Amino acid sequence: MTKPVDKFERVSEIARRRGFFWPSCEIYGGISGFIVFGPLGSILKRKIEDKFRDIFLRRLGLYEIESPVILPERVFKASGHIEHFKEPMVECMNCKRKFRADHLLQEAAGISPMDSERMSLKEIEEAIEENGVRCPECDGELSEPRYFLTMFETTIGPYSDVVGYGRPEAAQGIFVEFRRLYEQARGKLPIGVATIGHALRNEISPRQGPIRLREFTIMDLEFFFDPEEPGCPLLSEVKDEALRLVLAESRLRGSEEPVEVTVKEALEKGYIKMEWQAFFMALAKRFLMELGVPEDKQRFIEKLEWERAHYSVQGFDQEVYLDRWGWTEVSGHNYRTDYDLKCHMEESGVDMKVFKETKEVERTEVSIQPIMARIGPDFKGDAQRVIELLTKVKPEDVEESLKRLGFYNLEGFKILPEHVRIVRRRITERGRRFLPHVIEPSFGSDRLTYVVLEYAYSTKDGRVVMRIPRDLAPVQVAVLPLVSKDGLPEKAREVYSLLIDEGFTAQYDESGSIGRRYARFDEIGTPICITIDYQTLNDDTVTLRDRDTWRQVRTSIKELPQLLRGFFSLKLEFGDLGKPVE
Amino acid sequence: MTKPVDKFERVSEIARRRGFFWPSCEIYGGISGFIVFGPLGSILKRKIEDKFRDIFLRRLGLYEIESPVILPERVFKASGHIEHFKEPMVECMNCKRKFRADHLLQEAAGISPMDSERMSLKEIEEAIEENGVRCPECDGELSEPRYFLTMFETTIGPYSDVVGYGRPEAAQGIFVEFRRLYEQARGKLPIGVATIGHALRNEISPRQGPIRLREFTIMDLEFFFDPEEPGCPLLSEVKDEALRLVLAESRLRGSEEPVEVTVKEALEKGYIKMEWQAFFMALAKRFLMELGVPEDKQRFIEKLEWERAHYSVQGFDQEVYLDRWGWTEVSGHNYRTDYDLKCHMEESGVDMKVFKETKEVERTEVSIQPIMARIGPDFKGDAQRVIELLTKVKPEDVEESLKRLGFYNLEGFKILPEHVRIVRRRITERGRRFLPHVIEPSFGSDRLTYVVLEYAYSTKDGRVVMRIPRDLAPVQVAVLPLVSKDGLPEKAREVYSLLIDEGFTAQYDESGSIGRRYARFDEIGTPICITIDYQTLNDDTVTLRDRDTWRQVRTSIKELPQLLRGFFSLKLEFGDLGKPVE
Repeated sequence: MTKPVDKFERVSEIARRRGFFWPSCEIYGGISGFIVFGPLGSILKRKIEDKFRDIFLRRLGLYEIESPVILPERVFKASGHIEHFKEPMVECMNCKRKFRADHLLQEAAGISPMDSERMSLKEIEEAIEENGVRCPECDGELSEPRYFLTMFETTIGPYSDVVGYGRPEAAQGIFVEFRRLYEQARGKLPIGVATIGHALRNEISPRQGPIRLREFTIMDLEFFFDPEEPGCPLLSEVKDEALRLVLAESRLRGSEEPVEVTVKEALEKGYIKMEWQAFFMALAKRFLMELGVPEDKQRFIEKLEWERAHYSVQGFDQEVYLDRWGWTEVSGHNYRTDYDLKCHMEESGVDMKVFKETKEVERTEVSIQPIMARIGPDFKGDAQRVIELLTKVKPEDVEESLKRLGFYNLEGFKILPEHVRIVRRRITERGRRFLPHVIEPSFGSDRLTYVVLEYAYSTKDGRVVMRIPRDLAPVQVAVLPLVSKDGLPEKAREVYSLLIDEGFTAQYDESGSIGRRYARFDEIGTPICITIDYQTLNDDTVTLRDRDTWRQVRTSIKELPQLLRGFFSLKLEFGDLGKPVE
Repeated sequence: MTKPVDKFERVSEIARRRGFFWPSCEIYGGISGFIVFGPLGSILKRKIEDKFRDIFLRRLGLYEIESPVILPERVFKASGHIEHFKEPMVECMNCKRKFRADHLLQEAAGISPMDSERMSLKEIEEAIEENGVRCPECDGELSEPRYFLTMFETTIGPYSDVVGYGRPEAAQGIFVEFRRLYEQARGKLPIGVATIGHALRNEISPRQGPIRLREFTIMDLEFFFDPEEPGCPLLSEVKDEALRLVLAESRLRGSEEPVEVTVKEALEKGYIKMEWQAFFMALAKRFLMELGVPEDKQRFIEKLEWERAHYSVQGFDQEVYLDRWGWTEVSGHNYRTDYDLKCHMEESGVDMKVFKETKEVERTEVSIQPIMARIGPDFKGDAQRVIELLTKVKPEDVEESLKRLGFYNLEGFKILPEHVRIVRRRITERGRRFLPHVIEPSFGSDRLTYVVLEYAYSTKDGRVVMRIPRDLAPVQVAVLPLVSKDGLPEKAREVYSLLIDEGFTAQYDESGSIGRRYARFDEIGTPICITIDYQTLNDDTVTLRDRDTWRQVRTSIKELPQLLRGFFSLKLEFGDLGKPVE
């Protein structure tokens, strides 16, 4: 029983053979979850990242920073990753293989991802028993499920006690630097800061290919804004963009039918809570369209409460339809509120608040002053700790509890009215101090690279043509002498040098018949083949062949640089490049 | 006693305040050896990397691949890193701080790096005793020195027994993929493959700033060629380039005086052994010149035998003179021979040899056939091992030794003539099978980013002007309304939008006096300030101000895109951009 060859298999075969991507370390048997982007793939991937930079950063005046992949433990303690970034795992008692428990329940017991992802360890254990799930490899009995921390751990420096982790997202490297970034932006909001770089997730069972990797490239954009001024002034640029939304309420009713609404409608109807989130979702849709994914192969699926990351209050996944896996996440859009800045402020003790001038306002500040003369004798050795804890609670809560109950429970210490003085002061303020809120669009560029290839894959007359959008093509131009004699190679070399000097990515090729060479360049998605023939020697003109239509035009060599620049910056179409050849 | 403020301090202050680079995780007290490249620094660093791509890859038709930072243990076992990639460390018995022993000897006992780096642990221990070296922090007594493996270790997947390491160089990620890369290049040599990406070295004592980091970006280029055809056909392009070489023989005589020779002379005199190595060294010199480092601030220092990495037979470090540190390595140029491919071939058992067609040649192949009937009884339990070892030795060596001595010493096993049969066969070959040799130029882009900033740093009328080469400037153009009223901001916004649409990296700024704004953009190295004044409203012209000379020219808005494109691609000079303003 062989499965039919799907697009993933076809694309992967070309990817391996021609140099887009393949499994890392094949000579050592491969290493699950790690891939290599080859000579063609690395350029394609970088061009996708550069397009992200162009659409999300340069055009909007937002920033990029490059921060380390390895960060110290405290960062992830603060961010909640050490507590939350784990997956349920079971081990086969017989062959000792390990599996993600929720995936196993999906595959072996048909439990939906929606249900299996919300299960507790106990519920997983019961579901395994009830459904008689056994090891898919050797049919052995499975262990009790337990949690596995899916971050890569290491130690920093020769002191073995400084634990570090590979970042599972680039976001934390931005949050911990927020104060500096805010200063550098001269204290203005909103600011947006992105990082494009490698990230690490120690997946229990990585998928084949570039879909679920242990090491991957993340493109995280953290957009900081004042929650009291949440309006997006750029909304008019996207307000009529149509979005296909699969809402949480539909999903709870068991339907994945999308509603199709404009950005404006999505906000008016309250489907999307924040304007900036809607704005970035619209850009994400356009971004994917520029990568070659048509509208009807895209949708946004709203995450259910238990599916959302621990920091998110509303989240949508942008999904693209893939031949093998169906709807597949390509980006996440989360409203992270002030969760992360608050966490780092608490863990580091460093104030992360920003200040914004406003009209003068009067307000009352309530504070607690501990009365040492009573706390000392009553709490003895714990007195220091009690005083510390008192600095961290809300004075209003203490006051209210003392009034209502006559005491306040401070993590087990019973605080009585005689222990503290509640002080009220009238304050005139000239501004507000607050933590910015954050909207985060987040993409994985490995997966996007695969998406581009799957959507570019097509056949014409039984041959593969990779219709990669021309501004993303790894090799822009092939320079081909019609035959490798009579001075044509020399002339072709001249044209090649000209194009290289003008900044194009070109390849020279004289081996094999011209038809075979065209086929070779179609297969790697080279938009233009330039052929040098006998006429070239007479009049300095060459033919240009279009990858997608195989049409040809003739043009003079000296006009090539300008014409090709227009073509690759999408200002000219192929027909504009010369006179049609019969 | 305060040290005078050197350039490193001045540059770092600007870098932190304006957003080039700063220590990572400052809110958690910083983490030694990890830095962040900010909104300006990340663009500058990327442009440096793109220039490397342009000079070393695109123009030469060489390749780039992107491979994982984490690789399994076997890769580094094979490459020799687990054995060699370690540094001597001592610990203070009192404060428990740890130090690089050789650095301590350099700083506290004045022993030269040349000498301290070749010392064994025992010699280091003796030197510490003799010189009475103590802890530089608390004056405590130091422990015995021991080796510390300076790779970051982690475990891959939920099986705790799969050890992985953060790559200390990107080279291994290329070597392990050589077979695929060679296939993709359709079996032709030479091929060059680079990787630009993060690498990790768990330094015992990282230096401040971007000079010695634990996480950094490496740009490794592995150039594979046929050792029997080592000629570089591109040599004519660089043969007259002057190189300043500090040769090993001078260094052994205690002199660091460079000889200044052309590439051609360096090869003729045998200073540089391989043509390709000389070629890449010449490109490296030009690369650094394009980054703003003049010829006389560059040199190549030949590594002494004990300074070279374990895989190198000839190595030069390219050094640049820096204000604080003196001559500082910015790139390494090593002739790695077939060391790495051979190691991976042995460890993986996968044939890494390439085949090259030649004319038919007859040759004699000598092989050893073990005679089991004699080996079995004579070596008993070791027989299997003896047979294995026999497959790994050169048959010619065995034959010669048996003839000369009557026996062959096989790692302690005495092989006698009766144990083996020496077989000779005549073979007709249509090609050669061999391991390619490798020349490696290797750069660190963090350090280069700092180098660019230090060489760009200058003052004019008491103000800082960062003369960053204009094709590397993070912000290309500032758009400034002369005053923020009378419709000038609106007009300036139009110009800003035009430039953004045309692909420039621009900033709009209307806050503060025009002089202050010019100063702000001089400090971040923005080459052109465009000012929108009252005349603009009448005739659609603007003034352009040159960062370096503060000269101004006037030009029409509609010509801006083309003029600026010419300026930033180095085809036009500032004077070409318009009419001088009096």
